[in-house]
Amino acid sequence: MKLVCFDDYRLGVQNGEGVVDITHLVTDVPEAWKPLRMIRLIEEFDALKGQIEQAAQSGPALPLDSVRLLAPLPRPGKVMAAPSNYMRHVREMVAEDSPLAKIGLFLKASSAVTGPSQPIVLPYADRRTDHESELVMVIGKRASKVSAEEALDYVFGYTCGLDITVRGDEDRSQRKSFDSFSPLGPCIVTADEIPDPQTLEINLWVNDDHRQHAFTKDMREDCRNIIERMSAVMTMEPGDVIFTGTPEGVGPLAPGDTVRINIEKVGEMAVAVVPSYA
Amino acid sequence: MKLVCFDDYRLGVQNGEGVVDITHLVTDVPEAWKPLRMIRLIEEFDALKGQIEQAAQSGPALPLDSVRLLAPLPRPGKVMAAPSNYMRHVREMVAEDSPLAKIGLFLKASSAVTGPSQPIVLPYADRRTDHESELVMVIGKRASKVSAEEALDYVFGYTCGLDITVRGDEDRSQRKSFDSFSPLGPCIVTADEIPDPQTLEINLWVNDDHRQHAFTKDMREDCRNIIERMSAVMTMEPGDVIFTGTPEGVGPLAPGDTVRINIEKVGEMAVAVVPSYA
Repeated sequence: MKLVCFDDYRLGVQNGEGVVDITHLVTDVPEAWKPLRMIRLIEEFDALKGQIEQAAQSGPALPLDSVRLLAPLPRPGKVMAAPSNYMRHVREMVAEDSPLAKIGLFLKASSAVTGPSQPIVLPYADRRTDHESELVMVIGKRASKVSAEEALDYVFGYTCGLDITVRGDEDRSQRKSFDSFSPLGPCIVTADEIPDPQTLEINLWVNDDHRQHAFTKDMREDCRNIIERMSAVMTMEPGDVIFTGTPEGVGPLAPGDTVRINIEKVGEMAVAVVPSYA
Repeated sequence: MKLVCFDDYRLGVQNGEGVVDITHLVTDVPEAWKPLRMIRLIEEFDALKGQIEQAAQSGPALPLDSVRLLAPLPRPGKVMAAPSNYMRHVREMVAEDSPLAKIGLFLKASSAVTGPSQPIVLPYADRRTDHESELVMVIGKRASKVSAEEALDYVFGYTCGLDITVRGDEDRSQRKSFDSFSPLGPCIVTADEIPDPQTLEINLWVNDDHRQHAFTKDMREDCRNIIERMSAVMTMEPGDVIFTGTPEGVGPLAPGDTVRINIEKVGEMAVAVVPSYA
């Protein structure tokens, strides 16, 4: 099942013809909080699943090119991330004995999340700002101190993420949290469609330049173990997301670029790059 | 005005006699999201202020010792923090030319927030875990690229915060985001009661040991400039909070300790310390 958020934060499920509007299934979220509707849908998914499947079958569907796709989770509860999780990326960035080469955990601001129809806004004319293509896990159930064996039971689904990053010596959580620095999309693919998240191919292009090409099997720490380690630190809630790290091939973005990410079985999105400066 | 969250995430306003229940003023938050009620109250404060003042005057009040105080914001949208913001604290921790001595910005997990009635849970028997007493600002209005001159217009109020911290070389956002590592309370004091947040005295005791004593005038970067700098990176929303940094005197916590923080005009809370390990 492929779930999307579109137009004025409406909820949708994709079928072969386009997007079927299922916003009416989430009734108790205040209008002011409509960016949070998908979180409520995830929390209530067991009860709503039948109605969503029914809607996907019976339509009517809006053509995909007639809607404006937002991030499927426009405002996650929290955004966790696994740095240095592909060894060839570590080697292109830092010495192997650097503290930055270690597996770890940092947070990105939930306010940095945008979607396929929204541009990445570069904050500085004079600082390198990179693309990082990443498989993103969406948490489906409260998860605290979960074992690796059980970890995937807590995953609601997967989406594509761009972990946009200013290079420099500030905390990662600053350099990676500018508004628009966490594009997510185009949809959440529910976990039943991806029984093994370590079997996926990741590709990223900047304009026509094929910059990143890798396989999730090359993660230093797999999705299961990321959840075990991170849920030992912090309780995860439905609608939290985890960026699982970027492979090699990161590089700078420039105004006018288009970044396109494709993850096998998850989907593809292309995002424009604009400057905040004149 | 002093606003609290208590018992089963009920909202209250304090008066001379205790806490007046004002939960009924926030009607549109799903029951499953009751920890978010205070955010909704902050968003709607201009419309609700008269009714809250009326409730504070007409009561009836529950005695303070009859309620279980939670964090006034049990689940902030995001938790920003200013590291190294008091020079004497910087000097007790690192060399002045260390990157860690710089003013900066990091994020703490919103899931780490607890309140006065909840203990700090130490995750490691063998790693130093410190108390850091901090004035915390509560954001009242969406704030993006705000100037220092206007910054305090975006502050809804203030509360006391403990930025609990495992020492080590992981990212700050990991070491400071274990569950229970961001006690907030006992209340939010609205900004009208504190026209100048740089005039406050901060004290912290561990058991009977007076560990921290400082004045907010000694911040390297004052509240106004913290908001200017951070809102240039990320858009702040109502109910986001900012830890403004700890002064000197930080030190380790041990199971069985009680940590007590007092900030002039803001209030006092005492929190127990327990181990997660046997």
